[in-house]
Amino acid sequence: MSTSSTWPSDIESLPAGFRAAGVACGIKSSGGRDLALIVADRPATAAGVYTQNRYRAAPVEWDAAITPSGGVRAVVVNSGNANACTGTRGWQDVREMAALTADRIGAAAEQVLVLSTGIIGEFLPMESVRSGIEAAAAGLCDRPQSFFDAADAMMTTDRVRKVASAQVAIADTSARFVGLAKGAGMIAPRMGTMLAVIATDLSLGPEQADRMLRQAVDRSFNCISVDGHTSTNDTVLLLASGAAGRSVEAADEPAVQQALDELCVDLARRIPADGEGASHLIAIAVRGCRSGADARRIARTVADSPLVKTAVAGADPNWGRITSAAGYSGVPFDPNRLILSVCGTRLFAQGGPVDFDAAALQQVMRDRFEIEIDIDIQEGSASCRFWASDLTHDYVTINAEYHT
Amino acid sequence: MSTSSTWPSDIESLPAGFRAAGVACGIKSSGGRDLALIVADRPATAAGVYTQNRYRAAPVEWDAAITPSGGVRAVVVNSGNANACTGTRGWQDVREMAALTADRIGAAAEQVLVLSTGIIGEFLPMESVRSGIEAAAAGLCDRPQSFFDAADAMMTTDRVRKVASAQVAIADTSARFVGLAKGAGMIAPRMGTMLAVIATDLSLGPEQADRMLRQAVDRSFNCISVDGHTSTNDTVLLLASGAAGRSVEAADEPAVQQALDELCVDLARRIPADGEGASHLIAIAVRGCRSGADARRIARTVADSPLVKTAVAGADPNWGRITSAAGYSGVPFDPNRLILSVCGTRLFAQGGPVDFDAAALQQVMRDRFEIEIDIDIQEGSASCRFWASDLTHDYVTINAEYHT
Repeated sequence: MSTSSTWPSDIESLPAGFRAAGVACGIKSSGGRDLALIVADRPATAAGVYTQNRYRAAPVEWDAAITPSGGVRAVVVNSGNANACTGTRGWQDVREMAALTADRIGAAAEQVLVLSTGIIGEFLPMESVRSGIEAAAAGLCDRPQSFFDAADAMMTTDRVRKVASAQVAIADTSARFVGLAKGAGMIAPRMGTMLAVIATDLSLGPEQADRMLRQAVDRSFNCISVDGHTSTNDTVLLLASGAAGRSVEAADEPAVQQALDELCVDLARRIPADGEGASHLIAIAVRGCRSGADARRIARTVADSPLVKTAVAGADPNWGRITSAAGYSGVPFDPNRLILSVCGTRLFAQGGPVDFDAAALQQVMRDRFEIEIDIDIQEGSASCRFWASDLTHDYVTINAEYHT
Repeated sequence: MSTSSTWPSDIESLPAGFRAAGVACGIKSSGGRDLALIVADRPATAAGVYTQNRYRAAPVEWDAAITPSGGVRAVVVNSGNANACTGTRGWQDVREMAALTADRIGAAAEQVLVLSTGIIGEFLPMESVRSGIEAAAAGLCDRPQSFFDAADAMMTTDRVRKVASAQVAIADTSARFVGLAKGAGMIAPRMGTMLAVIATDLSLGPEQADRMLRQAVDRSFNCISVDGHTSTNDTVLLLASGAAGRSVEAADEPAVQQALDELCVDLARRIPADGEGASHLIAIAVRGCRSGADARRIARTVADSPLVKTAVAGADPNWGRITSAAGYSGVPFDPNRLILSVCGTRLFAQGGPVDFDAAALQQVMRDRFEIEIDIDIQEGSASCRFWASDLTHDYVTINAEYHT
């Protein structure tokens, strides 16, 4: 068994059995690509994990009624409009998107999953959507560039494209994964996540795909935050074409799960790294907890504190903001046992401050993009890794000064 | 029965039996007033409500061991240093502050409450503190200016002084309240609150004062947020001198409770109104809930969303950010029943958008300091009022560019 995963937006080799396209059809005022299509040549297994917001966008309701499934043929995605909080008309629009796509590729509407992202509460410009589906269906291709175009067409306030790939070798069969994701704002997925589509040429059963996707998402997309605001449209989909010609037996699952986990972590980290206005990625590790839920709660509370986020933006090792955030997380622990380190420098232990070279640590924090915060509660063996954006002037500019 | 409460920082008349002072002793690098003393001429009833952060500052531990009490003589407050996360030495310092104050006014250390606010994790500069206590004790006075000086000496990143007063007439006796508060950042009190001291010349028993203070705090200081970050030092104290010469009987309690509630709301609202960098006060009313806890949870989630806060800062009626925040609060409700209004304009009902004049509402949001967000879940009769700051460039500047 071997896995590999690329951090730059590069694809070594694509899973067999999929084609993609990404086009501009006028939904985004910027004129950029805003409609993506990913098609499986033959019915694929599909699993999905969705937002737990009480407001689930119309496309989320549509997809959740379909997955897990053994017969999905396509995913159609639009950016620039979330089709959320849009009532009956929103529901009609998502059905039409699925039906039009199905018509173009020779499938049934119920074999087409739909993703939307963008402004909440406005109706989709269906003229644009219709022309986009037509153009994308006409341009489907199995080259990497088509998957890059599809990833670009998913972006909203993203600055960089988010694509990752992985390979896994099981006995004599080599299988591939490719993942496309988007997200920079309204990012605090809880049990769901932002838009991501993962395709593999492994053969997976619907329940097997569902179970494996849930585990991977729980360690990746559910462990990131830009702004603590859980979206109405969060969705991760896994499509398995089976074109590699091999089923995943029980003995193969650990290797496949590891490849899927690593791919999801790789993709998920790119979201807060590209968080709205972000100048640093904050990588939080919480150890020594009584449960994984406790570790995640502490990590999320630290990740979402505006005081921690601005301190990181200012390269300020203001550790009292971190210990006090852990302290109001709601997790019971002994404050005198907690050990805190930032970028490898120990700052707090045995209930009091540790002497450290503040100027040197500030320089490290200025120089590094990824700022590591390590918290050890010393009360158990459970842990969590979590990734967050810092909070900068650009975040305020993006969200206060432009109508989105 | 009559109550009155002033929004500007003015005091109509002070409760009898108290003197105050506020001096500069060099704890703050700005050179401003940083040590306050409030003294009761005779042993007063004292109740306190404290932070629920796992990290409770040394002065919080000290006060919590004393209240409720029938024999408190003074409150000594320093700003510029929180004496939090300071271990054994922090505990020694708080004892010395109490002992020195007690010595100057002829009391025992256990009759002196201590409040600290400022940076976490640094030791108090005790030379400065000692000279400050000496100077404050020498300058005690019962004029309003002394209480203004004391309020000024409690401030950290506050831009404006927070003082409020109230009167209550019971039969033939007129009694008075005065309240001093501070707070602009690290503000999301939960079951405790930021620093506030309320003094009255009513006669209250310790348990009675404790019970009445808890009710008032729950509707006021526990319903505000600047940044969602609960402090290590949150404290509200109520001192009752009894100098007005009248006990509060059961029949009097509703009038006294109402006066205390209104005073606490008045003081509490001033904190997010003066929140770090704030350009608007966001006043959130949530109605129609199954429980008060549900209403507060929805209100707090909306209040703490950076996307809602930046939209208000930008005078942008981006209502999808508000409905989606309610949707991820964790409170179960029917998304199609929720009605949302901003500054009196209805924006969302029956699961979909309502037509409105966006340009007119933007102008209203630009013109007003206080932005009203009204959410009606239509599922019950419980409600909550909550107050929050918006999120601006100045917030980031204050917290990222200066070491605090």
